[in-house]
Amino acid sequence: MDLTDRARADALDAKDPLAGFRDRFVFADDDTIYLDGNSLGRLPRPVAEGIAGGVESWAARMVGGWHEWIELPAAVGDRLAVACLGARSGEVLVCDSTTVNIFKLAHAALDLRGGAIVTDAGNFPTDRYVLDGVARQRNRRLVVVGSVEEAVEVRDAALVCLSHVDYRSGSLLDLASVTRATDALVLWDLSHSVGALPIDLSAADLAVGCTYKYLNAGPGAPAFLYVRRELQADFRSPIQGWFGQRAQFAMGPRYDPVSGIERFLAGTPSVLGTLAVDAGLQLVAEAGIQRIAAKNAALTDLLIELFDALLTDLDFELGTPRESSQRGAHVSLRHPEAWRIARALIERAKVVPDHRPPDLVRFGVSALYVRFVEVWEAMRRLQELVVSGVHHDVSAEPRRVT
Amino acid sequence: MDLTDRARADALDAKDPLAGFRDRFVFADDDTIYLDGNSLGRLPRPVAEGIAGGVESWAARMVGGWHEWIELPAAVGDRLAVACLGARSGEVLVCDSTTVNIFKLAHAALDLRGGAIVTDAGNFPTDRYVLDGVARQRNRRLVVVGSVEEAVEVRDAALVCLSHVDYRSGSLLDLASVTRATDALVLWDLSHSVGALPIDLSAADLAVGCTYKYLNAGPGAPAFLYVRRELQADFRSPIQGWFGQRAQFAMGPRYDPVSGIERFLAGTPSVLGTLAVDAGLQLVAEAGIQRIAAKNAALTDLLIELFDALLTDLDFELGTPRESSQRGAHVSLRHPEAWRIARALIERAKVVPDHRPPDLVRFGVSALYVRFVEVWEAMRRLQELVVSGVHHDVSAEPRRVT
Repeated sequence: MDLTDRARADALDAKDPLAGFRDRFVFADDDTIYLDGNSLGRLPRPVAEGIAGGVESWAARMVGGWHEWIELPAAVGDRLAVACLGARSGEVLVCDSTTVNIFKLAHAALDLRGGAIVTDAGNFPTDRYVLDGVARQRNRRLVVVGSVEEAVEVRDAALVCLSHVDYRSGSLLDLASVTRATDALVLWDLSHSVGALPIDLSAADLAVGCTYKYLNAGPGAPAFLYVRRELQADFRSPIQGWFGQRAQFAMGPRYDPVSGIERFLAGTPSVLGTLAVDAGLQLVAEAGIQRIAAKNAALTDLLIELFDALLTDLDFELGTPRESSQRGAHVSLRHPEAWRIARALIERAKVVPDHRPPDLVRFGVSALYVRFVEVWEAMRRLQELVVSGVHHDVSAEPRRVT
Repeated sequence: MDLTDRARADALDAKDPLAGFRDRFVFADDDTIYLDGNSLGRLPRPVAEGIAGGVESWAARMVGGWHEWIELPAAVGDRLAVACLGARSGEVLVCDSTTVNIFKLAHAALDLRGGAIVTDAGNFPTDRYVLDGVARQRNRRLVVVGSVEEAVEVRDAALVCLSHVDYRSGSLLDLASVTRATDALVLWDLSHSVGALPIDLSAADLAVGCTYKYLNAGPGAPAFLYVRRELQADFRSPIQGWFGQRAQFAMGPRYDPVSGIERFLAGTPSVLGTLAVDAGLQLVAEAGIQRIAAKNAALTDLLIELFDALLTDLDFELGTPRESSQRGAHVSLRHPEAWRIARALIERAKVVPDHRPPDLVRFGVSALYVRFVEVWEAMRRLQELVVSGVHHDVSAEPRRVT
């Protein structure tokens, strides 16, 4: 181990303009180095307060709370649009899950365009599974390609669905140029970029994403969807729910969706969940997405340098682009014993990464609460653990969740 | 006003075996008589604690919390099955919204059965709107009838969707006999009966319902769905999400749903919402659904008696069955000025009912926290308000939410 690296990490922390944001999070255990905020972000105090405030408001106002709550999905969507998405007011809605939102937007897109659905074999599982179902329901071809270059080359495509940042490699696509490269509507999954990197949806048609990673809104918090304003009039949700209805409380005989983005609401939205999203995104807005992205780049740069220095002789390979402009906020290391190593790090070394099959150990940095010295310490412990062979003691049987 | 009635109401409260449950709820304002628990139930202290516990567990365990949270939708579903639904283990799932769950089960039913979709013109709006969309998506006829008798007579029906308790009149259908009266699959919406009345799904095929009314799980808490065990193998969710996938974290190339009820999960479920449902249903279980139903019958009996005594000369008509065995836990009164009267009760008399168009003032009794004397006081204030004509001062313009 190189003490120079530790000193350098300390120096980076000392001049980190976001260092103070760490105190806005709840640390139940200060020793654990948590590098899985790209799976589930830590609890920010303002989110805990937002949820508690929602509970109090329910107790005090009861059904009268809906006079304000009913605006939340679009109002929080508007704030998310400004803080993180480069979208306009009336283009973003916080609701349902990423899965359900992909389903809604994919069906709506196929109402407008003939042709195939295209996705990438490396896309996140739920995206691929949902699109497989949608393709069968609509009697369309599902084309699963191996790269973004192939995706935009498919002829007669109605819809192309891609992840902005790959959940395994962390590779970042150029959203605007990919969108321009195809005549199909492009549906972006922003789950692994929202809150970590600046996003500019001004060139984009459709997007979805989750809020429990870099927006720190909590396990199963509502997701979001984006539909470019100019497309909305022609877009209809396949799930014709009462929260998308014009004059909802007239409870009329026929479904007649509102004209704006709220037509993509389905059932009664989660009030506490939406308040959590609001509090989470406001913390991101306060820190500023440019400063967050700069720190994420510096944290992942340091991680890759340490990988080069400490791990290349130990059967590890870098599974993530070296250029910070080409990646998101996580770094994956390939190793034949990836699953055992990830478990051993959690159980023996108090470092929390995650494992993605078949051979990745994935480390997420979350600029709002991860320190440079933690990245240094995590890589040091990882080296020590693999050199010692402790991971061989871990049972090889994968658990249901990793 | 008849002071005898007040004394009788006090006597009923004095011998009420559920009286103590009122202390399990948070009363921010003791003066308000809240008779809208059939729209949004009050906050129970155990639900506030369940949510706070979930937030703590997130802070302490972070992503490791999923080792337990992942079981919640089915585990809480099992507890709901026993406490409230007369269903078996593995038949109920807590997830998504009622709207999304109707969508999922309706599509799944049409995979198995040819023929029309049937519903009742008085069914809740979201049920009718969703089914309208599903019918168009599947190129099926949607038959909207005027009564349950007509619904079961429709020939060539694939699916009949009905509400167990009508959201306007409060009429209660005989679930078993209606299910037997048709060869179609029957999808029951239990939103206005679950937690208020005993339900026996042993004869039923499919059901959905919400948890924010008599289960008091909070605004937008997750809904539930039920699929009879024998049907599950042939049922597929149209929304092929990763939480319904066998070996979810293998993240394999093809969608392959788990064999049980969890195949109806879509995206990442709301952990805090599901914990709220769990706490809410456990309070119902502790009180016992039979005792709850008996008190609801007594409360609505008293309300109807007071209507007869105080309101029949004031242009009111009873919009709910007189026989307690034929109604749920709310009573609707028809009046040409229903909207103004409902607003005036809230703004001037500290009584909270709701209004349902065109002409109903709806009063819900929630056995766990409504007292007999509150029903007496509410009807007394209602009489006084209409006699005085105060409601004529209320603006006639309907607000978006009532």
